Amino acid sequence: MAITPIFLLLMNEFDLIRRFFRRAPADFSVRLGVGDDAAVVTTTTGHELLLAIDTMVEGRHFFADVPPAALGHKILAVNLSDMAAMGAAPRWALLSGSLPDNDPVWLSAFSDGLFALAECYGVSLVGGDTVRGTRSFTLAIAGEVPAGTALTRAGAQPGDDIWVSGTLGDAALALAAMQHQIALDPLLLTALRTRLETPEPRVALGLRLRGLAHAALDVSDGLIGDLGHILSASGVGAEIELSRLPCHPSLKTLLDGANRPLALQCLLAGGDDYELCFTAPPADRETLIDLSRELLLPLTRVGCITAAPGLIVFDEQHTPLPMLPAAYNHFPNSPQK
Amino acid sequence: MAITPIFLLLMNEFDLIRRFFRRAPADFSVRLGVGDDAAVVTTTTGHELLLAIDTMVEGRHFFADVPPAALGHKILAVNLSDMAAMGAAPRWALLSGSLPDNDPVWLSAFSDGLFALAECYGVSLVGGDTVRGTRSFTLAIAGEVPAGTALTRAGAQPGDDIWVSGTLGDAALALAAMQHQIALDPLLLTALRTRLETPEPRVALGLRLRGLAHAALDVSDGLIGDLGHILSASGVGAEIELSRLPCHPSLKTLLDGANRPLALQCLLAGGDDYELCFTAPPADRETLIDLSRELLLPLTRVGCITAAPGLIVFDEQHTPLPMLPAAYNHFPNSPQK
Repeated sequence: MAITPIFLLLMNEFDLIRRFFRRAPADFSVRLGVGDDAAVVTTTTGHELLLAIDTMVEGRHFFADVPPAALGHKILAVNLSDMAAMGAAPRWALLSGSLPDNDPVWLSAFSDGLFALAECYGVSLVGGDTVRGTRSFTLAIAGEVPAGTALTRAGAQPGDDIWVSGTLGDAALALAAMQHQIALDPLLLTALRTRLETPEPRVALGLRLRGLAHAALDVSDGLIGDLGHILSASGVGAEIELSRLPCHPSLKTLLDGANRPLALQCLLAGGDDYELCFTAPPADRETLIDLSRELLLPLTRVGCITAAPGLIVFDEQHTPLPMLPAAYNHFPNSPQK
Repeated sequence: MAITPIFLLLMNEFDLIRRFFRRAPADFSVRLGVGDDAAVVTTTTGHELLLAIDTMVEGRHFFADVPPAALGHKILAVNLSDMAAMGAAPRWALLSGSLPDNDPVWLSAFSDGLFALAECYGVSLVGGDTVRGTRSFTLAIAGEVPAGTALTRAGAQPGDDIWVSGTLGDAALALAAMQHQIALDPLLLTALRTRLETPEPRVALGLRLRGLAHAALDVSDGLIGDLGHILSASGVGAEIELSRLPCHPSLKTLLDGANRPLALQCLLAGGDDYELCFTAPPADRETLIDLSRELLLPLTRVGCITAAPGLIVFDEQHTPLPMLPAAYNHFPNSPQK
């Protein structure tokens, strides 16, 4: 056990915020950060403000034994992913933490994970709140785009290509292995867990998709469900080819064996991918391939937008899948108890 | 039991957000509200942005049987109070709710309470998130002030008067009665519970204090602790007169009897007051008395700022209280278990 200086054991709420969550922002837009009733920041002229919020609860979104630095990373990453999906530059964050105790070792690692990622993307943590309770974190984020350039879910047009960044299903496969639904090689599991526990938000991609993508979102609840949001917001349909979906080689192997149902579930409805799914006209294919090379991030064309409503997923023999796995839903469709 | 239409029983997470938390904002600054990865809003030229966040957890900040409309009111009210404390006009809110179920009757009342207050103050709910878990709510709020006019905790000057709006201790007295620490007349308790469950944020006062108050905050954790924040941020001390503290007549009566310790606790460190405490030069007394009349809100001069550090509370005989009650602290100073 680490030796904890006595003053850390005697912290109250304000000491705790001061010690772990107040770091001088390098960002000159922050006139007043953590420590008053509200933060004061200066927005950029000619820009619009983007606002989003996300919560993670222990036992639901993360295991009790997840490394605290990973958790600090992830609560910010999932919100950065929302900014990326809108083509926004993330700027300021507010954190509310519910904590069972004020364990300084845990908190120090958590805040290090959070601030390391915040620094990568130029985000300033400008406010917060702590309460005692089950471990959970809510982070609200504010970002900016030049007025009128935000990427929304509406705007996909028939004939558009559908693109996906990175790979899909890695996080869900890791989760399945951790829940003993499937046995994986330990080294492979370690690699896949990184995707689950410390996802990389596609902020740079989002910024470059402004003026290029017709519609975009981040894949957090699984491709099928999230693409469905683009389709309903845009009033269009889509066709997807299973064989084109970018995934880890191990998942590709599983697709051809007895674990095909699990592999399909991970790939199409796994959740926690935090990749971007977007549509763009075929004329932009070259531009997007160049962009993929420049960002060192795979961008894969997985299907196209159709005028006819509905979502069809073609299998490897170009036969439509008769059943699609259900997307993740926090409140499933079931009569109330 | 109310008859619930079958479609309400079959809601999923997205239906739930759509039904209860998506209402068309009357505010033209909202380009895109609930329903995308982030909200898009237009800030006002020449203004600074104010950002704050607050969480309320069942069993800690509210009882399980609190009326849901009151809870919807309060989670917004405590954040509006932060905007008031900064002299800001509240504009946009993001809500994250952790819910044990999707009971439509409860949610409908909750959202009615939230939106009724939001409408009073021209606030648009522009985003949200729901997860399943212990009932708790986190609301993040964004507001605006003309650049450079935000009221902060720093800036109090020796010789300043210390002012408090409304009355102190009502909410804490109600809580004490609900926890059977004291017996109160049922009609009185009903009146005091209103202060606990549906506090009125002092937004109009905050806006008028711009350019007038030297320092300001909202009293949420009790006067002693919160005034302490002004003193340390401003590098000054203060003297307060107990007999001047504005309170309900019933609390005044308790101060003179066997329950004096409880009354002192409520008045000085009760928490949940959501009144503003601010400092202003004596030259502004007349202006503040006029403002009090105009806003139909008592403003009471309770003491003064001193150059000498420390906080002295004088009792009715002008003797300093030897001991001050401790302010509310979510993580009390005690060695870790």
